[in-house]
Amino acid sequence: MLIVQKFGGTSVGDLQRIQNVADRVVRTKKAGNDVVVVVSAMSGETNKLVAYAEHFSKMPVKSEMDMLLSSGERVTASLLAIALNAMGYDAVSMTGRKAGIVTDSIHTKARIEEIDPTVMNKALKEGKIIVVAGFQGVSMEGNVTTLGRGGSDLSAVAIAGAIKADLCEIYTDVSGIFTTDPRIESKAKKLNRISYDEMLELASLGAKVLQNRSVELAKKLNVNLVTRTSFTDEEGTLITKEENIMEKPLVSGIALDKNQARISLMGVKDRPGIASDIFNKLAKSEVNIDMIIQNIGHDGSANIDFTVAVGDLHDAKNVVEGFVKTGDIKEASYDENICKVSIVGVGMKSHTGVAAKAFSTMASENININMISTSEIKVSMVIHEKYAELAVRSLHNAYELDK
Amino acid sequence: MLIVQKFGGTSVGDLQRIQNVADRVVRTKKAGNDVVVVVSAMSGETNKLVAYAEHFSKMPVKSEMDMLLSSGERVTASLLAIALNAMGYDAVSMTGRKAGIVTDSIHTKARIEEIDPTVMNKALKEGKIIVVAGFQGVSMEGNVTTLGRGGSDLSAVAIAGAIKADLCEIYTDVSGIFTTDPRIESKAKKLNRISYDEMLELASLGAKVLQNRSVELAKKLNVNLVTRTSFTDEEGTLITKEENIMEKPLVSGIALDKNQARISLMGVKDRPGIASDIFNKLAKSEVNIDMIIQNIGHDGSANIDFTVAVGDLHDAKNVVEGFVKTGDIKEASYDENICKVSIVGVGMKSHTGVAAKAFSTMASENININMISTSEIKVSMVIHEKYAELAVRSLHNAYELDK
Repeated sequence: MLIVQKFGGTSVGDLQRIQNVADRVVRTKKAGNDVVVVVSAMSGETNKLVAYAEHFSKMPVKSEMDMLLSSGERVTASLLAIALNAMGYDAVSMTGRKAGIVTDSIHTKARIEEIDPTVMNKALKEGKIIVVAGFQGVSMEGNVTTLGRGGSDLSAVAIAGAIKADLCEIYTDVSGIFTTDPRIESKAKKLNRISYDEMLELASLGAKVLQNRSVELAKKLNVNLVTRTSFTDEEGTLITKEENIMEKPLVSGIALDKNQARISLMGVKDRPGIASDIFNKLAKSEVNIDMIIQNIGHDGSANIDFTVAVGDLHDAKNVVEGFVKTGDIKEASYDENICKVSIVGVGMKSHTGVAAKAFSTMASENININMISTSEIKVSMVIHEKYAELAVRSLHNAYELDK
Repeated sequence: MLIVQKFGGTSVGDLQRIQNVADRVVRTKKAGNDVVVVVSAMSGETNKLVAYAEHFSKMPVKSEMDMLLSSGERVTASLLAIALNAMGYDAVSMTGRKAGIVTDSIHTKARIEEIDPTVMNKALKEGKIIVVAGFQGVSMEGNVTTLGRGGSDLSAVAIAGAIKADLCEIYTDVSGIFTTDPRIESKAKKLNRISYDEMLELASLGAKVLQNRSVELAKKLNVNLVTRTSFTDEEGTLITKEENIMEKPLVSGIALDKNQARISLMGVKDRPGIASDIFNKLAKSEVNIDMIIQNIGHDGSANIDFTVAVGDLHDAKNVVEGFVKTGDIKEASYDENICKVSIVGVGMKSHTGVAAKAFSTMASENININMISTSEIKVSMVIHEKYAELAVRSLHNAYELDK
């Protein structure tokens, strides 16, 4: 098999851990596989460099930040290659540039435009283990760029797609995707397989293991993604296309997102385009809207409720208060004490009654549901934050996810 | 003027010092100059990375070392650019690759083959301050290379030549070139000007301020080199072509090299090509020979004395003992307790009696001279190490260098 293995900052946090990674890579190679490794900077390094830059400037020029931050992954990549060489394996490190990762020019948040796998394919043909510095690429203008948060995962997935790898393993400090957060429900179980779409829902709902960008890319490139821990040999969770999952569970997991705030607009004026005005202005302020509910009152004016990430609340408030001043909105209120509990499962597509069971479970615990939103494979409910853990545990039990 | 300023590891050793460098660069720019800055890694960084590599391997693959070590200069370059930007100046950092520094493929000891100044010239035309990561280039194959010890000085000189800078300032922790080591002779004086050839002799004789490779390149490219300290505004020493030095002193300086060992070969067989055999084998073992003396005995066999750097003694011994085994050499002895004292000055070319004064000075102190070697602008003497400082002080005084 051709396997891409990605190790994050914690997995390469010190020299001993880099050695452990080298041992694992060698085991994979010895088992008859070809291996491309993607590494992050040693944990703490990136934060240190950011602090250095901020010593000089609150808003350092972004292209210089990319020059600065891309050095951390280079260090890990060359150290790992040296370790592999010392163990008698032919290994070569590559920068993003060398690996052929071409991005746009949006420094610190670049998007991968294409990967030219020629150099990597040649090295693989020569039997070499390749160690790629993650998180970075090169723009059309020839400048180094970085891919933003979760960038090394993206590098790994994009590389796996470009070289047509059989598997892309993402090593972190957690052992896979669970039916729910084990810190909330100790009976949570690790999932063996999960579909891209389920993973996307879970990730956007607060499961921190993988960024949505990486899962989306994996889905697009049809990359079999595995998330597992670098600290043990425990098997992880395979994220793959739905067709590859034989036995589709009704519900795969329960996700909790406490990082939500609710904004309620009462008495929104009855004039065409007003809602579009409000949400356009919010988009311009880079506020991401999650759920939206609208209902029309007797007088023709509307009430609109929507949720945003807590971090966006301040910006959202500024926009909304502008409309309150002009009288387009009669009154607005803001509530940070909410959370969103979601049930995710591809099985919902072909089964009825999943949502009904969720509502009755909430009712039996006397939890009031403020907002509801559903998709083909998801039911989300906004409730008061104080019920967060209770709701998760009750639902986990109701759908028998511990079985 | 167009000025290249190079700052070594100590000068950029922490964030405050990087800010000091930024302040100096801004003063130079404000005075109406265009500035290209070349920086080393923050002091300690390179050693830290080397130690990391050696944790995994005693002999890390050299191309990986280049990937590893080149990261340190990138960090300093981007931090300095960020600091300059924060002060309101348009500054841009460049890797060796971006600055157009093309080298051969001898990793960790690459030689600059050419510099394409297009990108730098364009940035200068736009009024930008350029900050180049020193010590590094890119090979024809597109791999990052490093230039070995003193590599950042080389980068600076080569860049100064390529962009036709008026001046190349090398900032270190010493304030210039002295008539001798001030730690040995407190009356040593700083030289205002010195010729490339004198500097080359002094550097190869142990004056640690500049590496010979940099001075040779400056001579070749006709770059006016200034060595000065980054800690004060004190003027440094200008290293330039001889024609630019009006008043040529008889002797410019006294150099001391304690890092020498003497090898004496007694009874070298009288057969054609034997000396050539010996020195060829030494060259193949990368042993650098400094002085050689040969004299022929009555029986036709020869005695050969030569000196090598102490670090090369082990390798040299291996080669020599091979010839002893075969009987080509009757006996060999090794002496590490020697040193080389040298008198350097362009004035020697047109004056006689300089060497004679050196010998008589040694005689008056009862110092035995083991070996003598002279060039147009230098007299070197090998003596017992215990007389090293005495010899330097006596010569400094004899040539009135404190005046």
